[in-house]
Amino acid sequence: MEIFEGGVTSAKGFKASGVFAGLKKARKDMAMIVSECEAVAAGTYTTNKVKAAPVLWDMKLTGQGKARAVVVNSGNANACTGEQGLKDAEEMASYAAGLLSTEKELVLVASTGVIGVNLDMAKIKKGEELLVQSLSDDWKDAAQAILTTDTFAKTAACSVEIGGKTVTIGGMSKGSGMIHPNMATTLSFITTDAAISHDVLQSLLGKTVDDTYNMISVDGDTSTNDSVLVLANGMAGNAEIRKGSAEEAVFEEAFRYVLGTLARMIARDGEGATRFIEMTVKGARTKEDAKTLARSVVSSSLVKAAFFGSDANWGRILCAMGYSGADFDPDIVDLFFVSPKGSIEVLSGGQPVPFDEDKAKEILLETEVGAVADCHQGDGEASAWGCDLTYDYVKINGDYRS
Amino acid sequence: MEIFEGGVTSAKGFKASGVFAGLKKARKDMAMIVSECEAVAAGTYTTNKVKAAPVLWDMKLTGQGKARAVVVNSGNANACTGEQGLKDAEEMASYAAGLLSTEKELVLVASTGVIGVNLDMAKIKKGEELLVQSLSDDWKDAAQAILTTDTFAKTAACSVEIGGKTVTIGGMSKGSGMIHPNMATTLSFITTDAAISHDVLQSLLGKTVDDTYNMISVDGDTSTNDSVLVLANGMAGNAEIRKGSAEEAVFEEAFRYVLGTLARMIARDGEGATRFIEMTVKGARTKEDAKTLARSVVSSSLVKAAFFGSDANWGRILCAMGYSGADFDPDIVDLFFVSPKGSIEVLSGGQPVPFDEDKAKEILLETEVGAVADCHQGDGEASAWGCDLTYDYVKINGDYRS
Repeated sequence: MEIFEGGVTSAKGFKASGVFAGLKKARKDMAMIVSECEAVAAGTYTTNKVKAAPVLWDMKLTGQGKARAVVVNSGNANACTGEQGLKDAEEMASYAAGLLSTEKELVLVASTGVIGVNLDMAKIKKGEELLVQSLSDDWKDAAQAILTTDTFAKTAACSVEIGGKTVTIGGMSKGSGMIHPNMATTLSFITTDAAISHDVLQSLLGKTVDDTYNMISVDGDTSTNDSVLVLANGMAGNAEIRKGSAEEAVFEEAFRYVLGTLARMIARDGEGATRFIEMTVKGARTKEDAKTLARSVVSSSLVKAAFFGSDANWGRILCAMGYSGADFDPDIVDLFFVSPKGSIEVLSGGQPVPFDEDKAKEILLETEVGAVADCHQGDGEASAWGCDLTYDYVKINGDYRS
Repeated sequence: MEIFEGGVTSAKGFKASGVFAGLKKARKDMAMIVSECEAVAAGTYTTNKVKAAPVLWDMKLTGQGKARAVVVNSGNANACTGEQGLKDAEEMASYAAGLLSTEKELVLVASTGVIGVNLDMAKIKKGEELLVQSLSDDWKDAAQAILTTDTFAKTAACSVEIGGKTVTIGGMSKGSGMIHPNMATTLSFITTDAAISHDVLQSLLGKTVDDTYNMISVDGDTSTNDSVLVLANGMAGNAEIRKGSAEEAVFEEAFRYVLGTLARMIARDGEGATRFIEMTVKGARTKEDAKTLARSVVSSSLVKAAFFGSDANWGRILCAMGYSGADFDPDIVDLFFVSPKGSIEVLSGGQPVPFDEDKAKEILLETEVGAVADCHQGDGEASAWGCDLTYDYVKINGDYRS
């Protein structure tokens, strides 16, 4: 697998653009991705009962399994916007389809930003005109344009050899609040030139999202707009990837790299975050238990606040494992704090270990910190990713709309 | 029902004390409650898999259904403390039993504070000696001594007539972080002079806690030490309250008043809180659905941060209802913000209502704020209570141990 700097235009036959359409105050706020030819399309979406209008539109389209383009706006989520919201999502697809000389049923749409305000369709249409004029091989403008409170653009790309052909996967995501994906995530767009059937792609997407996006949490709030959309246009020229084949395994590894990298970038850029937190659970009864335990820890406000203060308050980690709902025996757990500065054991076989507070502080002052718990009950292992809870999180969210 | 200022010594035959034993830096840190005669004892406890040593001790005792005294310390939770922790909890009961000339199996113990550090038993024993010497009718010192990061003591009391006798119920609680009770809560101690059987008392406790303590959240973290303990010593002289009787209904109303008042005080005094939030859901399919929806809203970091900023960001409320797991139709919901300054509708039949931002701000600048959602799908109604998420929450929890 070759990893390189890239994004949604890295795979063959994709162009993209990002422009300022006036939905946000100053920054780029609309993006477009277009495939030269019709692509297989797959998607996973929020499990929130309140689904934004673009999510409902896209669910229908990826159910049919094909698409040619994606149009995205930030600054407004088009969620909780009633009948008008549904009409606006469809018109957003339909107007872009006209400009691209394709059908509206091949245009996916996505929105992110404030909830409960109708889209300004005049600005959206003007933005779409600019987007079509600006389409190019550049992937950076699009990655910028989908951001909300993010502090950096999130992209990843890699290539693998499949049947003698180079298959490339690239993607981009946005964070950075209302992040607690469940069967889906915040907005994420993946493009690949692989030839792959809809069924295989959709099934790969589901299981990969479960291990990547569904293992991050910024604030415990599952958004109304979470979507991961994938377009696979087949332009790499490989023979179609079949279920259970060696080719599928190669593709899956690359796919997992791109989604995992993007997911961790979202956690790293959590609203107000000063620290990236990785919680690893080993020796759980099952992988599912390990996931539940790890995810509970990175979701705990108290754990997150302790990491903000570089405080080796390990009791909160054990407490969060305890209320996770997963089965484990707290009396035999080992627990370590880890960072690039080293590791320190704080609990051994369920008994507190006296530890050097200065050493612990040194480890926890790093910007990439974490903990490893060994449950000694089986082979289940998983990691979850999050960030610390800071004054700035409160500041950003105390007055998000203004 | 007569409501008055009181606490754990308001019911006949109970004495209490609160002293400084050196577990905290300066404030009172140990409390004791003693009944003149053996009392019926009931308890509900944390559902966290990680249960503190005193919780395990008390579960055994309230299972047997009787007790004479409770000893509490703050400053140290005696949780995640291994075998030594269990021994210490038992010794804490046993030493107090000796001083009170009773059996250790009649002495409940409770601890709150930092997790993962063994109790200083010399200080605990010295504290118990002071506690026994200081026993009196005063309920205030005990209420002070159980606090951790709380900013005020939480007590409530009332009396009702049952069979011509005056039955009194009093109680005290502590907050104010790691609050997300599940079938139980943070430490809470209720005393009554009612004559009531263990079965009736335990069953009343379970259902009342479900509507009161289990409907508050400060930070989504279910503690390792949550306990509600009730002692009923029968000294009111009423005929024993029977299941399903009119007397039980009268007692239940008073019991519900005390537990509900204490629970709301905990929410009001949430760590760093500047606002008390009440979320009411009406018209849900069932009461359970209403509870799930309301509780999800007061637990949302984004909703809490918006209330901190007096920001009428109602989309976050609908979003939190959406991911609660309860069934409802977002397209027919009405939503209002409310406070002593009035109410304002922001969503009607699932459609956003243009509203006066100045009026909304005026409503949300109050210290007691809330929202009411009407789901129009049935008779289910419930309220949940919480507080805003503030800079001070992060500050308090960023360095709790020092």
